[in-house]
Amino acid sequence: MKKHAKWVWIAVAVLLVFPLSLPAEEGMFLLNQLPMERLRAMGFQLSADDIYRPGGGGLSDAVVMVGGGTGAFVSPKGLILTNHHVAFRAIQINSSPEHNYIREGFWAKTLQEELPAPGYECYVTLSFRDITDRVLKGISRDLKAVDRFKTIERRISEIEEKESDENKGIEARVVSMYDGMYYYLFKYLRIRDVRLVYAPPQSIGNYGGDIDNWMWPRHAGDFSFLRAYVGPDGRPAEYSKDNVPFSPRTYLKISTKGIREGDFIFIMGYPGRTMRYRSSYSVRYAQEVSYPLRIRLFKDMIAVLEEEGEKNPELKIKFASRLMGLNNVLKNNQGMLEGLKKSRLLKRKLEMEEKLQEFLRSNPDLEKKYGHVLDQIGALYAGLNKTAYRDLLLGFMNYGSQMYNFASTIYKWSLEKQKPSKERDPQFHDRNIKRLKERMKLAQRDLHPPTDARMLEMFLLKLSELSDELQPLPVKEIFQRYPELGKKEAVHRFVQELYSKTQLADLDARMRMMEMSNEQLMNLNDPLVRFAAEMNPVQEAVQKESEAFSGEISRLRPLLIQAIREWKKTDLYPDANRTIRFTYGTVKGYEPRDAVIYRYATRLSGVLEKDTGEEPFNCPEKLKRLAEKKDFGPYVDPVLGDVPVDFLGTTDITGGNSGSPVMNARGEYVGIAFDGNYESMTSDWQFDPDLTRTIAVDVRYILFILDKFSGARNILEEMTIQ
Amino acid sequence: MKKHAKWVWIAVAVLLVFPLSLPAEEGMFLLNQLPMERLRAMGFQLSADDIYRPGGGGLSDAVVMVGGGTGAFVSPKGLILTNHHVAFRAIQINSSPEHNYIREGFWAKTLQEELPAPGYECYVTLSFRDITDRVLKGISRDLKAVDRFKTIERRISEIEEKESDENKGIEARVVSMYDGMYYYLFKYLRIRDVRLVYAPPQSIGNYGGDIDNWMWPRHAGDFSFLRAYVGPDGRPAEYSKDNVPFSPRTYLKISTKGIREGDFIFIMGYPGRTMRYRSSYSVRYAQEVSYPLRIRLFKDMIAVLEEEGEKNPELKIKFASRLMGLNNVLKNNQGMLEGLKKSRLLKRKLEMEEKLQEFLRSNPDLEKKYGHVLDQIGALYAGLNKTAYRDLLLGFMNYGSQMYNFASTIYKWSLEKQKPSKERDPQFHDRNIKRLKERMKLAQRDLHPPTDARMLEMFLLKLSELSDELQPLPVKEIFQRYPELGKKEAVHRFVQELYSKTQLADLDARMRMMEMSNEQLMNLNDPLVRFAAEMNPVQEAVQKESEAFSGEISRLRPLLIQAIREWKKTDLYPDANRTIRFTYGTVKGYEPRDAVIYRYATRLSGVLEKDTGEEPFNCPEKLKRLAEKKDFGPYVDPVLGDVPVDFLGTTDITGGNSGSPVMNARGEYVGIAFDGNYESMTSDWQFDPDLTRTIAVDVRYILFILDKFSGARNILEEMTIQ
Repeated sequence: MKKHAKWVWIAVAVLLVFPLSLPAEEGMFLLNQLPMERLRAMGFQLSADDIYRPGGGGLSDAVVMVGGGTGAFVSPKGLILTNHHVAFRAIQINSSPEHNYIREGFWAKTLQEELPAPGYECYVTLSFRDITDRVLKGISRDLKAVDRFKTIERRISEIEEKESDENKGIEARVVSMYDGMYYYLFKYLRIRDVRLVYAPPQSIGNYGGDIDNWMWPRHAGDFSFLRAYVGPDGRPAEYSKDNVPFSPRTYLKISTKGIREGDFIFIMGYPGRTMRYRSSYSVRYAQEVSYPLRIRLFKDMIAVLEEEGEKNPELKIKFASRLMGLNNVLKNNQGMLEGLKKSRLLKRKLEMEEKLQEFLRSNPDLEKKYGHVLDQIGALYAGLNKTAYRDLLLGFMNYGSQMYNFASTIYKWSLEKQKPSKERDPQFHDRNIKRLKERMKLAQRDLHPPTDARMLEMFLLKLSELSDELQPLPVKEIFQRYPELGKKEAVHRFVQELYSKTQLADLDARMRMMEMSNEQLMNLNDPLVRFAAEMNPVQEAVQKESEAFSGEISRLRPLLIQAIREWKKTDLYPDANRTIRFTYGTVKGYEPRDAVIYRYATRLSGVLEKDTGEEPFNCPEKLKRLAEKKDFGPYVDPVLGDVPVDFLGTTDITGGNSGSPVMNARGEYVGIAFDGNYESMTSDWQFDPDLTRTIAVDVRYILFILDKFSGARNILEEMTIQ
Repeated sequence: MKKHAKWVWIAVAVLLVFPLSLPAEEGMFLLNQLPMERLRAMGFQLSADDIYRPGGGGLSDAVVMVGGGTGAFVSPKGLILTNHHVAFRAIQINSSPEHNYIREGFWAKTLQEELPAPGYECYVTLSFRDITDRVLKGISRDLKAVDRFKTIERRISEIEEKESDENKGIEARVVSMYDGMYYYLFKYLRIRDVRLVYAPPQSIGNYGGDIDNWMWPRHAGDFSFLRAYVGPDGRPAEYSKDNVPFSPRTYLKISTKGIREGDFIFIMGYPGRTMRYRSSYSVRYAQEVSYPLRIRLFKDMIAVLEEEGEKNPELKIKFASRLMGLNNVLKNNQGMLEGLKKSRLLKRKLEMEEKLQEFLRSNPDLEKKYGHVLDQIGALYAGLNKTAYRDLLLGFMNYGSQMYNFASTIYKWSLEKQKPSKERDPQFHDRNIKRLKERMKLAQRDLHPPTDARMLEMFLLKLSELSDELQPLPVKEIFQRYPELGKKEAVHRFVQELYSKTQLADLDARMRMMEMSNEQLMNLNDPLVRFAAEMNPVQEAVQKESEAFSGEISRLRPLLIQAIREWKKTDLYPDANRTIRFTYGTVKGYEPRDAVIYRYATRLSGVLEKDTGEEPFNCPEKLKRLAEKKDFGPYVDPVLGDVPVDFLGTTDITGGNSGSPVMNARGEYVGIAFDGNYESMTSDWQFDPDLTRTIAVDVRYILFILDKFSGARNILEEMTIQ
């Protein structure tokens, strides 16, 4: 699942009554809107206050955003239980061919042995509230789309700046709910020193690898432990030897009582993004344009990294995290595409919209208010379709080639720094510059210029194959530069020249460039920076189009949702947007297809059943011996007659929820969510209660691995086990 | 499953008490040895006499051997219900790009429209009895292995010749039971005019194709109808317009009452070959030598046919049947290999043999009688290992290149015809020559000399890569002929020259050669015949080695089985050998792996679920419409709430059983066996009651397709439906 949802820096609030007519387990609820009646009927033993209190003290205080996913405090000393794949970059960064923690696993026997995890931050939600009025005040419906976008963007920036308190480590974020209908202000405690405590070997933590990713039955022990550190004064601080473990206001207690099919469970976490109220135009664009193009691009990028990685083991480690990410989004997008087609969502959306229009036509007032919305959305998407492939290429070129990304960021910053902070693109606001520089430093670890050059070459070649009208001018000029060469050879020669002369691969040179004025920078005459400068107007034009689209669509989408509300006479829960949410359900298997039934849980014997001795099914010898000797300790499940490994629940999650705690009716920790089943990939677009499942590691498997496999008594003793 | 077991032309009898200590459903029982007590306990409502009567009149009269599989009479007019894949060659031979019965299906509305199925014969079992004494009389234990083999082979030939009556269409076959411990004489009515009556389109009959082959859940309607014809006098005769439908002594009644999980079922059919009593040496040879080599070879042959088939649609049809066969044995051998490894059969055989030796050592008499057997078997296999790859190449070269096969057969026949019939290799006995010529004629339909040349080239190249010691002399000489060329080019040039000059692709020329004396033949100076003549001493030497192995192993294997009997104090049922057998069990799903349950039956809705619109999941539009309109007729199953498609049973079958009738406790037709599940592939070596399943088409699906899809009222009316 591992899709690292991008932060949505737009924001906020809504008063909803969550209707009982939803499918039992659908919904990612805001913490002040729990469907208590239904929860109690299902056996939930806590109160709404036990979950979240605006002043702090609810279980939610223990649930943090970390490493693109979610984690939970499980000790009074800031110990965080999260997924192996969420902690993976921390494991990778600390690994080398000599100390391969990916392969061998990692275990700090003392606080001193814990390893820094640069780039990792941990966000604790402190509070949230509706500030729609502050954001939208006085914005007229007639405002031009780009201006509307810019105005909202600027107000959000101002509010975030005003409400943050860097000194206390408090960060404010404004997020939109319902695609721009409401805006919420969230306040977080941002902890910047996070360390690696324990990771099982990859052959447990990612057992089954890409083959099993999104699949059931699953046998991965996808967990790791991190720890949050703060300054000796208790306030968040940069990494320092002198920092001390953070004391969370609340932490979760581990239950060893186990779960059975039918048990009530709930999850808190930070789901990234869902699109449950989108129009047929949006679905058609995803299905016919966006996913197919992205899939092609991901495959090409994976091929480059795999080929280069095969050449030496060091590169293989360097690229491991990017490959894991790319393979994951590839499988996700493939599943999405397949799922959208199979479930015929487009057809159903079209039918739904036809009925909606019929309803609107029956009421002149509503017709006037909403009758035009779908057509207008359609017109917007028609514009998007034309340039989609070019925009995608230009976007992913920055991901594929880090060096190109350095060049264009440095160039853009040299222009933006001439303006006052507030008028800049938000990523260049004063308060974000430090983070930007850190990222640029961190990137050095993965950097491999020859591979990077191959990537840039691939993207330029693809751009050169666009129609004349869409082809960026600087790309056309490459061929004029080498009239004697064919396209492929010209691009190759051009990129080779850029990389042989640029200074950007050198960290110090790069960081110096970040400090230069535009004039100084251009005087350097670095060829890659120069090329980025030539590309800048193209990138800016694309960004402007994208802002216009956002400005317009953020006006239209809320109207569509309101129209649906008028029609259905009911309120709807808000789409996921990386803010903390609550979802509930039961432990339950499913029937994936005719004549096949999936049980709710897997067993240790199933781990051995899959073992081939070869990655990703290379079960560690020691684990095999424990299983064969039935040395299960107290972790055996009486129903399964074996150590439980993973289980299924009907809870409603998505990417970003990775690492979320799964709790029983009493709020005790019983498992850690780490994936959805293949059939649930399209749940971002629609929730199917028959097929959508959360996959979690049973906490008893975690305890079994810590105890019997690793002998990690210090971690077991630190947690409160009930 | 579709593996077309070769006839085992060695033969005979045994008095067994089938022990109740076997796993409930294990065993392919001879018809005079039914475990009646156990059957009655499970609900069987017939008597042993109802199944088989030596004078005729039992249900077994309706169960015939046909097209490499099994079929059953289902009307008084010789209508045979068998698998689509068993009838496939008959469908293919009658197909052309204009009348593509593979794609469209076929339906004869009258007897006159039924199409001849050349090459198809139908065998009805008349009787069988033990003749061990006649075969083994006076054969001393000291006889040399080759002589022992030759003596038994000659006696069997004599008995078969004596007991057959070509005039009445009665054919005698002598078969060994327990790898040579006993010999049985079987008498058959051999019907030589078989016609195609009905076949569904491949998108029903082979829905899921190679992807679903051996798989569950399955959704294939793998059935077709043939009809047996005899001369106007009621005796078997060659195809003629004047022939009339055969009247079987018994035919099976169709039940529409349906089956449910747990129901008793039984099957009669002609299973090809099992190896349940083989030694560890045999298992090791299969696992480490034979299967891996065969898999490599099958893949290479498939690649050639697929590449050539892609070039034009006519070739694709030409090669369809061979490709289907090759893909099937490939998947089978892959499954076997995987299954053998996974089930650790070798390890268990070794442990078992160690215990057996221990037991033998405890009794000096038994030790003397049997103590040496395993070592001697081991020594035999050691010899086999050395030449295995060469022998395999030489064997399959005759399958891969039909032209080479023509050449070597014609050459050998020109030598053999100089001897009296009885002293020849059995395939050249007078009574077999006619059949040989027919096959040679039929082969013309599939023949494509350029592809054939590629095949021969591939095999010669592989032979040329053998060690100097193993490399056949005529292959070495190819390179001396073209000293200027590399190996690959030399073989290519050589084969091109053979094919540009040989007359063998011409049917008439070929049939004329069959009539020539050796001198006449050699005077023709046909280069391919000449090459085959040069290869003949090599092939003969290999055959001699193989006969020595057979002679010796057929003495040792019965001793091993007797030793096991002494040890276990129990009798054992005989391995399959393509004679008629009875197996029973229940309708039942299974659990293939941790957390997965397979239901006992699939449904029509599952057919649509798999539909992609593309082969092999291209569900016909009409079938989709029937399913969507729920136009099920009376064929809906009350438990499934849908038309049933395929179901699982615990019965013990193997290749050769394809097309076998599945009957309920009252002996009524409820389904047609067509495959085993993937996990059951290794059941040829060992039977695992938890995982071994028969896959059958529910007869209600057959009726539904005939009625609702095709409207084939004439066929429905011809059958007796209860």
